[in-house]
Amino acid sequence: MKSFLNIDAHSHFSMHNIPFGVFRRGDKPPAIGTRIGEYVVDLGALEAAGVLKSRHFAGESLNRFMATGRGTWREARGAIQRVLSEDSPLRDDTKIRDAAVFPVGDVRMLLPCHIGDYTDFYSSRDHATNVGIMFRGKENALMPNWLHLPVGYHGRSSSIVVSGTDLRRPRGQTKTDDATAPAFGPSRMVDFELETGFFIGPGNELGQPIPISRASEHIFGMVLVNDWSARDIQKWEYVPLGPFLAKNFGTSISPWIVTMDALEPFRIDPPSQDPQPLDYLLPAGAAYDISLEVSIQSADMANPHVICRSNVRNLYWTMQQQLAHHTCNGCNVRPGDLLASGTISGQREDSFGSMLELAWNRTKPITLPNGQQRVSIQDGDRVTMSGCCEDKSGEYRVGFGEVTGRILPVL
Amino acid sequence: MKSFLNIDAHSHFSMHNIPFGVFRRGDKPPAIGTRIGEYVVDLGALEAAGVLKSRHFAGESLNRFMATGRGTWREARGAIQRVLSEDSPLRDDTKIRDAAVFPVGDVRMLLPCHIGDYTDFYSSRDHATNVGIMFRGKENALMPNWLHLPVGYHGRSSSIVVSGTDLRRPRGQTKTDDATAPAFGPSRMVDFELETGFFIGPGNELGQPIPISRASEHIFGMVLVNDWSARDIQKWEYVPLGPFLAKNFGTSISPWIVTMDALEPFRIDPPSQDPQPLDYLLPAGAAYDISLEVSIQSADMANPHVICRSNVRNLYWTMQQQLAHHTCNGCNVRPGDLLASGTISGQREDSFGSMLELAWNRTKPITLPNGQQRVSIQDGDRVTMSGCCEDKSGEYRVGFGEVTGRILPVL
Repeated sequence: MKSFLNIDAHSHFSMHNIPFGVFRRGDKPPAIGTRIGEYVVDLGALEAAGVLKSRHFAGESLNRFMATGRGTWREARGAIQRVLSEDSPLRDDTKIRDAAVFPVGDVRMLLPCHIGDYTDFYSSRDHATNVGIMFRGKENALMPNWLHLPVGYHGRSSSIVVSGTDLRRPRGQTKTDDATAPAFGPSRMVDFELETGFFIGPGNELGQPIPISRASEHIFGMVLVNDWSARDIQKWEYVPLGPFLAKNFGTSISPWIVTMDALEPFRIDPPSQDPQPLDYLLPAGAAYDISLEVSIQSADMANPHVICRSNVRNLYWTMQQQLAHHTCNGCNVRPGDLLASGTISGQREDSFGSMLELAWNRTKPITLPNGQQRVSIQDGDRVTMSGCCEDKSGEYRVGFGEVTGRILPVL
Repeated sequence: MKSFLNIDAHSHFSMHNIPFGVFRRGDKPPAIGTRIGEYVVDLGALEAAGVLKSRHFAGESLNRFMATGRGTWREARGAIQRVLSEDSPLRDDTKIRDAAVFPVGDVRMLLPCHIGDYTDFYSSRDHATNVGIMFRGKENALMPNWLHLPVGYHGRSSSIVVSGTDLRRPRGQTKTDDATAPAFGPSRMVDFELETGFFIGPGNELGQPIPISRASEHIFGMVLVNDWSARDIQKWEYVPLGPFLAKNFGTSISPWIVTMDALEPFRIDPPSQDPQPLDYLLPAGAAYDISLEVSIQSADMANPHVICRSNVRNLYWTMQQQLAHHTCNGCNVRPGDLLASGTISGQREDSFGSMLELAWNRTKPITLPNGQQRVSIQDGDRVTMSGCCEDKSGEYRVGFGEVTGRILPVL
């Protein structure tokens, strides 16, 4: 499958990908597009020109398209692949190409949709175990419920930002173990969390659970998620109602939603689960082989430095299980809702998906190439996550690009 | 202040109230209105007829009006009071009255706005103490953070419903203390929680906290909230990330938003707080004297039976403190976001705001007038909450009406 556009063999955005996103060019209104190699393609413009016969992409957000369902998504992806293929009439139509195909550097990416509700799970066993060991000791590392249900909680949708948005270091209330009273000030323990997330397609009505056998019909596609966290705020606030201000100062996502059809070649068997989950969580659904990487670049470093290599296959609970569990009580999910995985850590020490784990609760500082040490994110540090699938034959890639952002000093 | 419309002296919706809501009449589009006595007034229609000179009420939700700010809200309320007063030209204009003033029975209320994010606090000391005693014993009743910050967590906005909406009993995963493994099935411990909530006005940009001195500018008005809860699901799921499926099967709110200007005569001194909160939570802001009542009516009862009498003054943390805390890390709140108080319990046993407390963890069943006993909500039970302020002279009331709903059997 070749395009008339020149695509690097290592590009995340091959003809096999065709992700969906929303971009802005200059002061023009937001537009729905796809990305191919180093180009962004305005899908609304292709519809307006009659090159695409569909009517999904005229708006400024993907919610309406997400609501249409998997058959429509698949058809649209196929149609876009045909329009971009090497023998497409678009190749020689410079007028339409000028109006619809732009170098990626000419556009600014926006959030892909209106995110009504955001849920964050806690689905990597190694991450939950690591955190448990650090805070409760080896014997009580995993809570009793963890192996029986995909633990999750509601996050904040208002503070979800697209890759490239810098965030201010949060202030907050914290209390050190030896202090008699809490204090208020800038967090001293800002961290990242390496996650992926998926967007809801059609969704369900309140009171009508989505059975796990139909969960895949409601999963539109995936993005990378950096669930920024302030560990000192979290520690003082989170009992008994869970994390709140430790998380809601900002959550970053990658701009291009990679569809489940594009990820299909990288589907693998779900992890073996012991004890066997209850019936409403079976069959477990699908896992995916997606390589993940986290790099950090401090203000005086010339290049980013990779500090973590993980993989989506490290997740214990599948997306289908997360969604079936989320709706088993009748809770409704809507097109554009985001469900994130929780920190994705593997077994190896260099696969841990947060600084908390990489520096093992501040006891093993990470040394950067310039000699600086890190146990948490400092002002000016840029954290970048990337994710990619590689075809077994090495012929093509399907990737997410990256989610990146810096922590700025408090105002 | 008299209206040309006949208003019962005991009505919650006196000329001193002028709440805002959204209603639907027949198959007409949703419309923004106010309520006066037993009438609903279409404010968009009054603007269209030139009776109101403003341009706030043409849409189908209050978000845009909420964003305008307190000066505009106050002006609009004054203008509506004048239009409804006894010497208003509207009195004799039957054509406009027919197009804009309807008996309350002719309309169906909708959610008043798009609720982007929903946060639930835990701000009644007696409630937190009661729950703590039941689950952790008297010595550790209040968690160490509780007296230092308004504990809160993110709820689900998709499943917020307007009063009158019945909800299905949720299914879920639970584990009894003596069971070796969890089971899946209908919750056996559905409960209500008596709360109030406030809607955000203009709100803030991400990274720009709202200082407590300016918090009142961002509080549009209040509603009653029933935070339906499934105690058995909650008990098994909530450690360590907080309540999730125990809460998100439905949250009910009263349809009319009562403005802070209408509640101003019922403002009282904030509760004394010891230890003194940190500076960013001072000055504490305002408390309110609003009487609250909860009644229950089982399927075979002819009338509702009051089981709880509480008051908003029982809250320890003020709305200003909740909002300043929520944004102190830079988290943004948007017009239409809802922040709820947490269960409002007082010191007396008949002022406890949940069945969990009233029946003291199933040990003291409540006996209904027909002899039935209750330790939790049964299928067919209707729970109704009402809230009202009474002028000292007894001349008028400003109230919320009610939030009501039934629990239906599982499908």
